Amino acid sequence: MGMKKLINDPGTVVADALRGIEAAHPGTLKVDHTNRLIVRGDAPRPGKVAVISGGGSGHEPLHGGFVGPGMLDAAVCGEVFTSPTPDQVLAALQAVDSGEGTLMIVKNYTGDVMNFEMAGELAAADGIEVTSVVVADDVAVTDSLYTAGRRGVGGTVVVEKIAGAAAEAGRSLAEVTALAQRTADAARSMGLALTSCTVPAAGRPTFDLADDEIELGIGIHGEPGRSREKLAPVHDLAARLVNPILDDLDFTGAPVIVICNGMGGTPLIELYGLYAEVSDLLAARGVQIARNLVGNYITSLEMAGASITLVKADSELLDYWDAPVSTTGLRW
Amino acid sequence: MGMKKLINDPGTVVADALRGIEAAHPGTLKVDHTNRLIVRGDAPRPGKVAVISGGGSGHEPLHGGFVGPGMLDAAVCGEVFTSPTPDQVLAALQAVDSGEGTLMIVKNYTGDVMNFEMAGELAAADGIEVTSVVVADDVAVTDSLYTAGRRGVGGTVVVEKIAGAAAEAGRSLAEVTALAQRTADAARSMGLALTSCTVPAAGRPTFDLADDEIELGIGIHGEPGRSREKLAPVHDLAARLVNPILDDLDFTGAPVIVICNGMGGTPLIELYGLYAEVSDLLAARGVQIARNLVGNYITSLEMAGASITLVKADSELLDYWDAPVSTTGLRW
Repeated sequence: MGMKKLINDPGTVVADALRGIEAAHPGTLKVDHTNRLIVRGDAPRPGKVAVISGGGSGHEPLHGGFVGPGMLDAAVCGEVFTSPTPDQVLAALQAVDSGEGTLMIVKNYTGDVMNFEMAGELAAADGIEVTSVVVADDVAVTDSLYTAGRRGVGGTVVVEKIAGAAAEAGRSLAEVTALAQRTADAARSMGLALTSCTVPAAGRPTFDLADDEIELGIGIHGEPGRSREKLAPVHDLAARLVNPILDDLDFTGAPVIVICNGMGGTPLIELYGLYAEVSDLLAARGVQIARNLVGNYITSLEMAGASITLVKADSELLDYWDAPVSTTGLRW
Repeated sequence: MGMKKLINDPGTVVADALRGIEAAHPGTLKVDHTNRLIVRGDAPRPGKVAVISGGGSGHEPLHGGFVGPGMLDAAVCGEVFTSPTPDQVLAALQAVDSGEGTLMIVKNYTGDVMNFEMAGELAAADGIEVTSVVVADDVAVTDSLYTAGRRGVGGTVVVEKIAGAAAEAGRSLAEVTALAQRTADAARSMGLALTSCTVPAAGRPTFDLADDEIELGIGIHGEPGRSREKLAPVHDLAARLVNPILDDLDFTGAPVIVICNGMGGTPLIELYGLYAEVSDLLAARGVQIARNLVGNYITSLEMAGASITLVKADSELLDYWDAPVSTTGLRW
């Protein structure tokens, strides 16, 4: 099947989206087209620790949709499913620097980790204090095509929210970094795909699935998962997402934040159906859902599928989760 | 191609989603499973005019995602792409009745118009004062498979927002109804599909499109559009959406609300690319965008595609647009 997308050219997808973001959110967001940055309109914020993230594009609203008061100061946009360069990340670090230091939240993909690290060293040489937290919450696989260690997926959204809130509340760089690390350590995710997605520059689906097959344990780039299985009722699929998470970490005895996330091509009516099953399963296993999100938060272009993220919280993390946030992707 | 969906059974899709909505939003939303209603948690609100809407499911977040303070008091959920029954609508009218009267916002589909009207008459016989506004904003076709007159599409979101805000502000039923009608009269929309969608109970795509074809002027049920055309760059497709709207109503000289809406299966990165083109086109035609939304607001299950809605506003309508709203689908 050919590629059907609302685009001008595979080479201009990210640039065109950035033009749209700039046009849609004047004042609240600034766009640096040269470095492909989405920056909080009022950055740098004097007296506030900055928080940035970024990575390949195609996972929207992550990360650009989480730039704004109470969350990120900037997002660095790579090409679709491709790490941004160290120069881009360095430009972001310079754009948000208030003198209080900057936390970089990095999803655990080899290219991202390397390029953010290099940018952090360059910025440090310029006198900018930089820390980083690597998110590696995907229980599906240990190593993958793109990763040494676990991949960073839905937990990233929670880490960005909590770190952003702590920074907004005036916490120090060391404190914001520790909170982000604590959140990352408490996050576990698992996803599945019903269909592949098509990277514009590739022009064909990343993988093939038969009409009755799903890919279990998929990452966010169409990379191979844990197993290929037969399509089944969502009641059964929910268990195949939730059980590996609960097998990996004890989520009882603490308030838990749950994200029921769509991969981009799955309608909300199905995501709520999945959430009903997940909610029942967690109740049966003695897990107390304190907060939840149901919708598209970290996607793989138009892939049909979903992922479940659980974060074992405590009252401090919940307070930062509940703190006001005003971004295009998350707002309360 | 077979049907790949995260569901238990084609017959339980709406019921399962309602279980998920109830589990995800305790307190803020009440779910009446018998009548398939999503009701504001604190309804009925003494002293406030009520506003309800509804229709076939499969267009999420419309309408259930727009229930809450500043917008709807209740949404009535039909089966997928099927009008709710008069009994369901009557139950909603009874659930939200505060004695101040209720406005029903109805998309212009024959079944919806008939069933809401019948329910309104039944409620009136019970002493509930009911008005209705029919939204018919789609410029693509005059009559369709499902409609006498124009179809109701994206403009519905704006009518619900403005009527809900006016009701929240304490305006009378007559005033809320007049504002809703004024908004509906000022709304124009046009959509296109890159792919069909599959109604669960049907089990196969509603229509077929070749790999290089789009359906221009599509409604929200996969019903036939204005013409079948070749896929083209989004720069050209944007013009084919915007020009028929501007040919139909003069949008210059007033602040305009624009919705760049995804049909469910189109990623946000493409919607922002489309918005960049729409924004340029409107500027070139002398149309002043005062407010915008970019995202999924009224969908057709997993259909890939988009629609553009323009509403010619004024300072009063803009004030109600800007008023606080707290729903799962729209919040500020």
